[in-house]
Amino acid sequence: MKKSELQKARAAYEPKLPGVLKGNVKVVSGRPTKSVADEAEIQKLFPNTYGLPELTFESSSEKVSASKAINVGVILSGGQAPGGHNVISGLFDGIKKINEESRLYGFLMGPGGFVDHQYIELTADIIKEYRNTGGFDIIGSGRTKLEKIEQFDKGLEILKKLNIDALVIIGGDDSNTNAAVLAEYYKSINAGVQVIGCPKTIDGDLKNDLIETSFGFDTATKVYSELIGNIQRDCNSARKYYHFIKLMGRSASHIALECALQTQPTLCIISEEVEAKEMSLDDVVEEIVNTIIDRSKNGMNFGTVLIPEGLIEFIPAVKKLIAELNDLLAAKASEFASKHHGEQRQWVLENLSCDNAKVYASLPEGVARQLTLDRDPHGNVQVSLIETEKLLSEMVGNRLRVLKKEGKYNGKFSPQHHFFGYEGRCADPSNFDADYCYSLGFNAACLINSGVTGYMSSVRNLTKNAEEWIAGGIPVTMMMNMEKRHGEMKPVIQKALVNLKGNPFRIFSELREKCAKGVEFVYPGPIQFFGPSEVCDQPTLTLKYEHE
Amino acid sequence: MKKSELQKARAAYEPKLPGVLKGNVKVVSGRPTKSVADEAEIQKLFPNTYGLPELTFESSSEKVSASKAINVGVILSGGQAPGGHNVISGLFDGIKKINEESRLYGFLMGPGGFVDHQYIELTADIIKEYRNTGGFDIIGSGRTKLEKIEQFDKGLEILKKLNIDALVIIGGDDSNTNAAVLAEYYKSINAGVQVIGCPKTIDGDLKNDLIETSFGFDTATKVYSELIGNIQRDCNSARKYYHFIKLMGRSASHIALECALQTQPTLCIISEEVEAKEMSLDDVVEEIVNTIIDRSKNGMNFGTVLIPEGLIEFIPAVKKLIAELNDLLAAKASEFASKHHGEQRQWVLENLSCDNAKVYASLPEGVARQLTLDRDPHGNVQVSLIETEKLLSEMVGNRLRVLKKEGKYNGKFSPQHHFFGYEGRCADPSNFDADYCYSLGFNAACLINSGVTGYMSSVRNLTKNAEEWIAGGIPVTMMMNMEKRHGEMKPVIQKALVNLKGNPFRIFSELREKCAKGVEFVYPGPIQFFGPSEVCDQPTLTLKYEHE
Repeated sequence: MKKSELQKARAAYEPKLPGVLKGNVKVVSGRPTKSVADEAEIQKLFPNTYGLPELTFESSSEKVSASKAINVGVILSGGQAPGGHNVISGLFDGIKKINEESRLYGFLMGPGGFVDHQYIELTADIIKEYRNTGGFDIIGSGRTKLEKIEQFDKGLEILKKLNIDALVIIGGDDSNTNAAVLAEYYKSINAGVQVIGCPKTIDGDLKNDLIETSFGFDTATKVYSELIGNIQRDCNSARKYYHFIKLMGRSASHIALECALQTQPTLCIISEEVEAKEMSLDDVVEEIVNTIIDRSKNGMNFGTVLIPEGLIEFIPAVKKLIAELNDLLAAKASEFASKHHGEQRQWVLENLSCDNAKVYASLPEGVARQLTLDRDPHGNVQVSLIETEKLLSEMVGNRLRVLKKEGKYNGKFSPQHHFFGYEGRCADPSNFDADYCYSLGFNAACLINSGVTGYMSSVRNLTKNAEEWIAGGIPVTMMMNMEKRHGEMKPVIQKALVNLKGNPFRIFSELREKCAKGVEFVYPGPIQFFGPSEVCDQPTLTLKYEHE
Repeated sequence: MKKSELQKARAAYEPKLPGVLKGNVKVVSGRPTKSVADEAEIQKLFPNTYGLPELTFESSSEKVSASKAINVGVILSGGQAPGGHNVISGLFDGIKKINEESRLYGFLMGPGGFVDHQYIELTADIIKEYRNTGGFDIIGSGRTKLEKIEQFDKGLEILKKLNIDALVIIGGDDSNTNAAVLAEYYKSINAGVQVIGCPKTIDGDLKNDLIETSFGFDTATKVYSELIGNIQRDCNSARKYYHFIKLMGRSASHIALECALQTQPTLCIISEEVEAKEMSLDDVVEEIVNTIIDRSKNGMNFGTVLIPEGLIEFIPAVKKLIAELNDLLAAKASEFASKHHGEQRQWVLENLSCDNAKVYASLPEGVARQLTLDRDPHGNVQVSLIETEKLLSEMVGNRLRVLKKEGKYNGKFSPQHHFFGYEGRCADPSNFDADYCYSLGFNAACLINSGVTGYMSSVRNLTKNAEEWIAGGIPVTMMMNMEKRHGEMKPVIQKALVNLKGNPFRIFSELREKCAKGVEFVYPGPIQFFGPSEVCDQPTLTLKYEHE
């Protein structure tokens, strides 16, 4: 692997650890916990791991007696997030600190490698190559869902063969839910293997009172903000384009909100607000159109619009349309397929209920086609493939043309489109993510050494210096409730959507009128690793505002 | 303007100047020059500014007597490029060093502001806010072409009113060509105004023996390489996508080539090579397909493909098709428009000559439609709107499906698409561009002080320390030849295409077999401003290899 100069220089960075984890550690148990909702059901599903106490590590002056070596397996699950390599480095250093003979095994290409017994031993030489780098390429990642007993049993074979004491699963809400189910199962059969989760996702929707943020959110939003800032500087120099910028982040709008706080775009749509206000697609378009018209009156025919990836699913009317389309096209798949290309739109319109037909008719042709053609293996519309940024700009353009004819608009509208996702998921972790991830991994080693299972590694108090960070473990069941998935009620970790009453949204909403009217662009620039602390070491504004 | 922390910290950076420009300067004239071709025609068109000597500045121990104050006007012309603000800061500091009473005026929104007398005085307070920042927003930019006598005369009115001695035009090849025409005109009428050009363009195609690189190329390619690197790390972690990445850069492929040298993608298409080998679109597709098939045999169904924006125009067959389409649709515009949407493709096929009809028929429907529908005000196909990255991936996908049916391919092909342009044009300038631009501007002030006109500011020896940079002026006519533009022969600065015999391309071509077969990805990471010199101060590999 040929290394860039930055990679070489960055390898020397020593991630910060919470003060408490630097020396001898003792574990302090809090009170028994309960799930965020549906207590009885969750308790029933997790008889062995429900109600465990919250754990906190404290410094201990007592010399801890020598611990036995620990063998640990680690899995990277789901989409990449900056800092995964540092979780693994921290875990490696943590178990080596406990006992030099401890070993770390990495299962390859995600949970699939665990089930299929594909693994490598992660030695000091390998780890060294990946410290402070982005990506999950040290062992790869994958989306196989660990949810079946057969998978658990199959995995247990390799754990036993390798004499592995604990499995660390680095993943998002679904993967950590599965980690909890696995922990419960291994406990129930006395498998003798602990399971510990680590909160990963750039989406920022895996958080609660005790998990302040998921790792990767910091770096990814900083990369996107760099790009948005660059585009805004271009926008303000050329003064002739509207840039519609879609940002990855599945359902929640945390990424869009954080980027909006960082860059102060002309407009930023927040899906959770669209849903709360029961806005239609036309309402969203109208909001953009009105801003564009106001600006054109002041000679400003340019601006930026941030759009969260999940928007379309938060618009109640579109959600209903998609649901009916899914049913319709499943029920009459062959009839639809028999229609000639040019007739399909009409056929769909005739077969939808009146309300949904109206929404469908309002969609530009390309998007309407996407809704009926691009379907996943289950026949469902693949919402993530919908180019919402183009959909909105096309509808905005159409509306502006009508208003121009009516003499209500006299500006120029030239849109540009961008979608940022893969650009940030594997970026070199910011100092914050490098530190946080390393600490999460190191802390996971401490949890393993405490003998617990079904916990998520928790490092908090993150707006303070790393020295003051609080480290410990949170029972995963504590974050769970029951939700409907594929028609069945399932125990899942509650997703954190943007809280419309929280500080980050409040500060954004106080700012936005000014942004819509003028040019309030901020240009954050690229992530810096070597400069002054106020440039290199700031957490996200979301985290800062949430804990102010 | 709310400033980001990086912006605040970066404001303090002091750009490096060539050693010779730091103290007293004397100008040394070289021999008379001639144009790169078409000497007689160019000389005839530029009787007053042809054949001027190349100028070099040298340190002088003589104390220079006090110079009179100089009033200068500056114009940012065309697309943004990182560092424009530093050219202006350097120019400002340069004329202030000559005489504290000197004044700098900025014409607003490009050449249009010059013609329409829209300007501001650029004071020390204003300049201070923009030092070392990206963008052209200090005065804005625009694409009005300065080519008519009426514009020159109109502009002269404001120059005279403001008592301006010299006009500095910061632009690409076209803008500098126009600067030369303007210089010639003002000289011919004894207007008493000098005109000096500065070589700007991220495309990197404004260069020759004496202009080693245009400013902005360094930063823009570093931003794109950061993003490509991030995508490659993602690609190598998930191991399931082919990323087709189109890179801005009009006709020449310098940007794609530089990014390929920096990031070592699986494949990178170089338009100049496609043209030289007279490859068809199918040939390009076949090259990609073959690489994908080879990789699939080793279980690698992932990779990255860099595509220069101008590719499509370099494919001889497509070039011919576009030429005939332009003629056809101009001649039979109303007949075409009268056709029903679904019939247009067939109509075009029937009206094209046989060879071009075949090429047209081979294009995916969406692209074929783009070629006929999206036309500029002159009725021409807007090649820059063609989503070449999607065109290629669609054709590759189609071909792979056929080969799969024939049992010749057994992999999975999932493409992702990216287009990077606006993300880099206004990025914060790298140390290189910050220094180079500041020096170009400062040097322009020295040229003005020497009383010359029709020169381009030239700073070279750029792979050495700034201390050793050579500063001077190059007569713009020296870079010119005659080319056909809109049916007429015009004097223009010769565009520098990728030299297929040059070192950068040679090194790339030696590397690419390995890249196509394995994973040779390099991850450059974001531009750093504060770290070790080997991270922060490297010029582009293109520049380095060209001068090795």
